[in-house]
Amino acid sequence: MEALNKLTELSYALDTFYFLMSGALVMWMAAGFAMLEAGLVRAKNTTEILTKNIALFAIACIMYMLCGYNIMYPGDAAVNSIWPGISFLLGEENTVEAVLGSKGETYYSNLSDFFFQVVFVATAMSIVSGAVAERMKLWAFLAFAVVMTGFIYPLQGYWKWGGGFLDELGFLDFAGSGVVHLCGATAAFTGVLLLGARKGKYGENGEIHPIPGCNMPLATLGTFILWLGWFGFNGGSELKLSDVGEANAVAMVFVNTNAAAAGGVVAALVTAQMLFGKADLSMTLNGALAGLVAITAEPLTPTPLVATLIGAVGGLLVVLSIITIDKIKIDDPVGATSVHGVVGIWGLLAVCISNPDATLKAQLIGIVVIAGFVFVTSLITWFIIKVIMGIRVSEEDEYHGVDFSECGMEAYPEFTDSSKG
Amino acid sequence: MEALNKLTELSYALDTFYFLMSGALVMWMAAGFAMLEAGLVRAKNTTEILTKNIALFAIACIMYMLCGYNIMYPGDAAVNSIWPGISFLLGEENTVEAVLGSKGETYYSNLSDFFFQVVFVATAMSIVSGAVAERMKLWAFLAFAVVMTGFIYPLQGYWKWGGGFLDELGFLDFAGSGVVHLCGATAAFTGVLLLGARKGKYGENGEIHPIPGCNMPLATLGTFILWLGWFGFNGGSELKLSDVGEANAVAMVFVNTNAAAAGGVVAALVTAQMLFGKADLSMTLNGALAGLVAITAEPLTPTPLVATLIGAVGGLLVVLSIITIDKIKIDDPVGATSVHGVVGIWGLLAVCISNPDATLKAQLIGIVVIAGFVFVTSLITWFIIKVIMGIRVSEEDEYHGVDFSECGMEAYPEFTDSSKG
Amino acid sequence: MEALNKLTELSYALDTFYFLMSGALVMWMAAGFAMLEAGLVRAKNTTEILTKNIALFAIACIMYMLCGYNIMYPGDAAVNSIWPGISFLLGEENTVEAVLGSKGETYYSNLSDFFFQVVFVATAMSIVSGAVAERMKLWAFLAFAVVMTGFIYPLQGYWKWGGGFLDELGFLDFAGSGVVHLCGATAAFTGVLLLGARKGKYGENGEIHPIPGCNMPLATLGTFILWLGWFGFNGGSELKLSDVGEANAVAMVFVNTNAAAAGGVVAALVTAQMLFGKADLSMTLNGALAGLVAITAEPLTPTPLVATLIGAVGGLLVVLSIITIDKIKIDDPVGATSVHGVVGIWGLLAVCISNPDATLKAQLIGIVVIAGFVFVTSLITWFIIKVIMGIRVSEEDEYHGVDFSECGMEAYPEFTDSSKG
Repeated sequence: MEALNKLTELSYALDTFYFLMSGALVMWMAAGFAMLEAGLVRAKNTTEILTKNIALFAIACIMYMLCGYNIMYPGDAAVNSIWPGISFLLGEENTVEAVLGSKGETYYSNLSDFFFQVVFVATAMSIVSGAVAERMKLWAFLAFAVVMTGFIYPLQGYWKWGGGFLDELGFLDFAGSGVVHLCGATAAFTGVLLLGARKGKYGENGEIHPIPGCNMPLATLGTFILWLGWFGFNGGSELKLSDVGEANAVAMVFVNTNAAAAGGVVAALVTAQMLFGKADLSMTLNGALAGLVAITAEPLTPTPLVATLIGAVGGLLVVLSIITIDKIKIDDPVGATSVHGVVGIWGLLAVCISNPDATLKAQLIGIVVIAGFVFVTSLITWFIIKVIMGIRVSEEDEYHGVDFSECGMEAYPEFTDSSKG
Repeated sequence: MEALNKLTELSYALDTFYFLMSGALVMWMAAGFAMLEAGLVRAKNTTEILTKNIALFAIACIMYMLCGYNIMYPGDAAVNSIWPGISFLLGEENTVEAVLGSKGETYYSNLSDFFFQVVFVATAMSIVSGAVAERMKLWAFLAFAVVMTGFIYPLQGYWKWGGGFLDELGFLDFAGSGVVHLCGATAAFTGVLLLGARKGKYGENGEIHPIPGCNMPLATLGTFILWLGWFGFNGGSELKLSDVGEANAVAMVFVNTNAAAAGGVVAALVTAQMLFGKADLSMTLNGALAGLVAITAEPLTPTPLVATLIGAVGGLLVVLSIITIDKIKIDDPVGATSVHGVVGIWGLLAVCISNPDATLKAQLIGIVVIAGFVFVTSLITWFIIKVIMGIRVSEEDEYHGVDFSECGMEAYPEFTDSSKG
Repeated sequence: MEALNKLTELSYALDTFYFLMSGALVMWMAAGFAMLEAGLVRAKNTTEILTKNIALFAIACIMYMLCGYNIMYPGDAAVNSIWPGISFLLGEENTVEAVLGSKGETYYSNLSDFFFQVVFVATAMSIVSGAVAERMKLWAFLAFAVVMTGFIYPLQGYWKWGGGFLDELGFLDFAGSGVVHLCGATAAFTGVLLLGARKGKYGENGEIHPIPGCNMPLATLGTFILWLGWFGFNGGSELKLSDVGEANAVAMVFVNTNAAAAGGVVAALVTAQMLFGKADLSMTLNGALAGLVAITAEPLTPTPLVATLIGAVGGLLVVLSIITIDKIKIDDPVGATSVHGVVGIWGLLAVCISNPDATLKAQLIGIVVIAGFVFVTSLITWFIIKVIMGIRVSEEDEYHGVDFSECGMEAYPEFTDSSKG
């Protein structure tokens, strides 16, 4: 009996540690988004995007603590399966007695779960910042971050992961191709629609002017950081590690996450080579991310070979999607809509390939509900912010770079000619 | 019995692994300081600060192995509570019998403890390098690193964490707002005092010339690295993980560490916006670090909301402190004195807010003892080095950049005009 | 009985988690190589080397999954100790019954082992990319990566780690100074021999023109990433964590890995200062890597002091080797041959210093077999690729930078004058 109790405690410690390490890896994704986006914008807009990235992470942590977590995981406080109750996090924790008496139900620290979840909401918000880069007012963006991380994300998250109606419907989304990536991409897309394209992106005669990123090593670093962080993102979403079956599952998730990213890289690289005649690095990076997004909805049931193929389809799709979205003159500087939105949908549909519990109907409903809900609420939010404070910087500020107008500081003061447009 | 013994061994393995993972995260902070400082200096002084950062880490590891660890944690070899004994690390480890017979006293590998501690001393030393940037001789700095990491840091560390008189007095410092951050900041401050300001920083008529950092993405990356590493720094300082109470404690430390950083970001961003009318990125980054330093003395007892507020006060303080220190013409290029010193003191005082065991008196004594001891010993050390080899490069070398004079190598040879001053 | 079974399961979970965390750290080394190499080449060849690094990682993951893993670890499918059988990974896993019935033989997830191994093969391949930088065709390099990661690396890996004849001979190589580093360096060396030097590297009158790296902060970041990742590389190679003896061993490996890197830094820094009169950063970075490579063959049996010295000899050797290799006009832009080859051999010989089971004869046989086999097979592979598609870009493309010719994209479009040669 003493041994069994000690064993239960040790198991609790291991699962808690697994949550915390996974959460630390997901937190690290914030640095990945910051570097990726800083590498893909122009030098004159770099300080601002860095500021946005660190500030949105902080806002996400505070808002999710204040209300988001309780909206998303209300526990017994839920009013019904659509609208949860709201209470506040006080740092309450499981007692030894509760753990020992729970027959394995209570097997990790509440706060480790909060930590894991809070870094997820930051990920969703990070997706938005790249898409609206180079032309949005900093404080308008941060105002949106407050609403997104405190209310929009948690509410749709509750519908699936909190046990709400999407979960009851049989919608499957292991680690968040929908709840996180499609959600973030939809919010980003809404912002892009309201903002309009960057000056100079589309010519008067319909021609498209590519605006190359200023620092490709940073973009590559960001991609590698995201790849690493994704092991926490998907690997931690198994939510348990401490027996043979769960340990095997976590290992499978790691392997498949890696395999899908590899598939995405190769597919995007080959596609770009065939379409452009060159090994386009930015497409290759987006291919890696697409592979990761694609496998996120179901990294457990495919074999590694199937995971590679799911990622490869993601890598192919992301190249075609980026080209198409550019053609219809929706200006998303980092391709966030394609990577997280289009490929997020692919990931949700691909669950049906390997998981016999999935139904195409439930997956489609989930996609429509998440995209629809986030589209409407984001549009309203952006619109209100636009009316109150405006969302786009002046043409002159955009010309000189938002670094000056928003942050009063250049990112590379010694390397670039600040008189350059 | 067999089960209980195996359980004790498994528990030992988990706690050891927890130490090693925490230590790896703290080691990663060395990269964070290197990137932060490389981003905040001018291009012409970048190679030198990178060289300092990697060399100080190596020196810290060697000196702490040779003598620092035994000074700080003398075990039975301590002569008394002021002056410890000195022996040398031979890699001795706990036997299975010792572990099983210890009734839980010996619950992790000695070498994992050494690994965790050795990366801490490197952190303390990293704080110094930024403050003396752009004008100090490289080898003078490294000579100071030998003394600091081998003797000054370990001795004051012994007074608290090794069970010395500060510990006996009831001084509380969970993960080192005092032992690490105030210690490093004081040594940095002493160096700055002896060195004087950079040429051109303060004009003849009392005006202050800002010298912007050359690479803000690097500075931001460094901040994110430090944020991640801090989960090891504070999280590992609970020193045990393997039962329900300890696992809960480690989770609380992770959550509070993250919350305080978030609070620091928002407070510094808002303060900077109000004072300067711009969202100053470098202040925001320092706000994140200030939040982290502030919570380091007590990341366990506050609720997450209180932790956020403790961090926010840190973020506010760091902005005011950087402005003030600049006004009194103490030239600290990266704000290390403010981030680690002023906010370190705030962190030590803030222990009294949430921990009923803390007394203001003991905290004040700890602050005075650490700052006083490090100030005096550092001053003597810097002075001796100055007499023997000089600590400041020539005016001409400073003008052309210490990269040429100290390292013979430019950091960005293709990006900057090397004829530029 | 119930307690013992649960204990076995928990132990399995911990060892699996240890593998996965170690593997994640090794995966992170891919980012380290990418940043190191991107920092050490010229701006005009940066996009291409980034593309190579992310693509080779993806190719390594796919090829090792398709055939490499089964060649290297054939298990019962081995035909004999020279040539293994080939089957394909289907994601099969241990059942609870198999684990409980194995009396401790089956103590971690198969897939976690695959994950750990797959990131190793990527490391070996990453070594090649730097050496052939700035003049090789991208697709020729990737074709080589297919053969190297699918066949050459796994076959020689099987001879040691898969239980083949080198293992039977008593050749010792804990984490791969030979199997990974010497292997990668030999393949790199062969490529360099066939490619020839970069234009402008060696003058007509025999003079050597240094070609400085364009971004030293990136190179430093890469080194720190590799240092961190090496804790997984060596630490995970103990292959077990879950009892007192194993936990002690893993801790010792962490401490010694860190100590050797520190020794390498100091030795290289001092050697460079003595030889050149300057604290050469790129030599110092190579010193850190050399210390890490040197300890990789035996990070367990030395004391930390001896590990520091083994690393220091590595740091000294790497400086001398880089100078010598440059003098004999073998153009290795990042020093990969010296760091991983020359120092890899030193590491394999140094096993004899601390491990009584090692024999100089077996170590020498291992060195000759690995280097000889990889040399011959790589040479044939490079030669076939050369005949089919050519391996070197045109002089004009080399002059303008391979970024244009291979990737159609600049790495720093706003920072460099693209008309510059």
